[in-house]
Amino acid sequence: MQFQYYMPVRIVCGEDCVRKNHEMFAQFGRCALIVTGKSSAKNGALDDVKFALAQNGQGYAVYTDVPANPTVACVQAGAEEARRIRADFVVAIGGGSPMDAAKAIAVLARQNAEEGIFSHAIGEDVLPMLHIPTTAGTGSEVTQYSILTNDEKQTKTSISAPSLFPKIAFLDGKYMSSLSKEITVNTALDAVSHAAEGILSVRAGALSDVLARESLKIVFGEYPALLSGEFTSESRSNLLYGATLAGMVIANTGTTPVHGMGYSLTYFRGVPHGRANGLLLPAFLQECEKSVPERVRMICDALGMGTEAFSEKVAALLGDRERFSEEELRDYAHRASLNKNIKNCCVYFSEERLLAVLCRALGRRTR
Amino acid sequence: MQFQYYMPVRIVCGEDCVRKNHEMFAQFGRCALIVTGKSSAKNGALDDVKFALAQNGQGYAVYTDVPANPTVACVQAGAEEARRIRADFVVAIGGGSPMDAAKAIAVLARQNAEEGIFSHAIGEDVLPMLHIPTTAGTGSEVTQYSILTNDEKQTKTSISAPSLFPKIAFLDGKYMSSLSKEITVNTALDAVSHAAEGILSVRAGALSDVLARESLKIVFGEYPALLSGEFTSESRSNLLYGATLAGMVIANTGTTPVHGMGYSLTYFRGVPHGRANGLLLPAFLQECEKSVPERVRMICDALGMGTEAFSEKVAALLGDRERFSEEELRDYAHRASLNKNIKNCCVYFSEERLLAVLCRALGRRTR
Repeated sequence: MQFQYYMPVRIVCGEDCVRKNHEMFAQFGRCALIVTGKSSAKNGALDDVKFALAQNGQGYAVYTDVPANPTVACVQAGAEEARRIRADFVVAIGGGSPMDAAKAIAVLARQNAEEGIFSHAIGEDVLPMLHIPTTAGTGSEVTQYSILTNDEKQTKTSISAPSLFPKIAFLDGKYMSSLSKEITVNTALDAVSHAAEGILSVRAGALSDVLARESLKIVFGEYPALLSGEFTSESRSNLLYGATLAGMVIANTGTTPVHGMGYSLTYFRGVPHGRANGLLLPAFLQECEKSVPERVRMICDALGMGTEAFSEKVAALLGDRERFSEEELRDYAHRASLNKNIKNCCVYFSEERLLAVLCRALGRRTR
Repeated sequence: MQFQYYMPVRIVCGEDCVRKNHEMFAQFGRCALIVTGKSSAKNGALDDVKFALAQNGQGYAVYTDVPANPTVACVQAGAEEARRIRADFVVAIGGGSPMDAAKAIAVLARQNAEEGIFSHAIGEDVLPMLHIPTTAGTGSEVTQYSILTNDEKQTKTSISAPSLFPKIAFLDGKYMSSLSKEITVNTALDAVSHAAEGILSVRAGALSDVLARESLKIVFGEYPALLSGEFTSESRSNLLYGATLAGMVIANTGTTPVHGMGYSLTYFRGVPHGRANGLLLPAFLQECEKSVPERVRMICDALGMGTEAFSEKVAALLGDRERFSEEELRDYAHRASLNKNIKNCCVYFSEERLLAVLCRALGRRTR
């Protein structure tokens, strides 16, 4: 038995947990920069945070200029704003984009990264962060990763450091109550992908496996809700908890070729991140099954079905697939082969094998 | 779904993990105080730590004056030694006693506790700690608790603070390879008790439940080895990993009346801590089953047996039981009723109900 495990975020889970635990905000200083997307906070989360800060007599500014798939420019502007208001801490509200942007903002508010954020060695001096997910998928609230759009390399690139773990993650499923079926499905598929990829990581260990299996069980246990688009508050809580578990997994294992391939779908064709993973995961698992059947069996046991059935169930969630030319797929396979998370998989994926997965997942299907 | 979860210790698990990861020691400073019991380190752990420190050019002193059930005097003397050598950090090697003593030493080396360690409000300024368990039971390597003998109150009292979490826990089952059957059984029963009590805590939550169920499965999965006293290196690793999981549980849930009652058995009669819990746990579970059958069922499902079968299996591990007079048991029930962990149980235990458990577990049996 050999593994390492580290996840220092305090998790506070429950209905109205932000309001009920407002005193937890007090220790972080006098003034917060709240980082959120234009629509991310229209679910009560921003009001709850304002309430919590007001209880403690803390000031704040709200920075909402975070687009989906956040850019370097947006995090630089956010850091500028944090410095301007002399923010002592950052509160992130949103899906993966605001939560990831907030991490980079927390770094750049305190550290000069003249060589560029992607080359910068991130130090310890980072504004403390409190993360409040409003989608159930990314797991960013419990990871040390921030995924940003990298226009130079035409992909999404992750920056990572122990100091990027938030101090607290507040989990409240009520913020997801008005999310569309589409976003709910896409983000759930992101979580499923995190858990499954974690089991296939070279860094998988006993503890990450436990969390991954539980995550798969819980998230895919909500399949009927995902298919129908009708979510009870219990479904919402389960999906959020399952996504956070999957975040705990990838905090320790990292991701694998599914993410490596998926970034091109998002960068070049605007496919939402979770959907990109969902499109690729079944074919990836079927490919892995040839090499590490016992690891894939662990995933299947947790899902309660084989890879074929899983593939069909995911297909039903995804609906019509985007079409890609053979040239596109060849290009994506090449780009993915250069991604660092290829080496993170317990199965070796050559460019050829990546192309096989891409073709199986995305090639020559009728729309 | 409502819970809080926090466990910031980095876990490094695997054979020779101390030697292989010696560079992890470097960041904590120039000089270590190694805290261990007189025999705790005679299993290779002390040599491995000395090797790791030497690789980094770090100095150290070894403090071995930690008795079983550590006293306030021993941690005060240890803190004195830490100050004398200007220790930058503490390395704890041993079972619960050295690991718990090391935490109190790390506090007292930096903080004046003139009002006494049990009344002292523990601040953030604590020497960083690296913990290396050499028994598989206490879980202290992943908790914020230090349990010390409290002669004033004639019991064991826990001190607790977020700053008492070690920075790193190194888990290597090889340090347990020469442990006696008796110590292995007693410490395993401590771990089982932690996991089961965690499920019956008022602070139990989805995440602690996952870890507790897995812990019960893994530790009690080693029942044949525990009964025969023949342990493979895989058994040792499993017992250690299971005990650490159970430590992660109680870091979040705390313990319950089993520990509350058990402290008297240890304080007044010298019953080893894990054995005390093992003596009490089955009767406690049978009592809880009347009030919260669904919680006890979760425990039984993980153990793979009902409370009656569990009681028999534990009895086979414990062998002959110590005898206690009715007067002793009445006294223990009264003392336990004053313990703070009584309120931490999802079942209310009056003094009368505590006595019923004590009598069922310990009363009127032939030796």
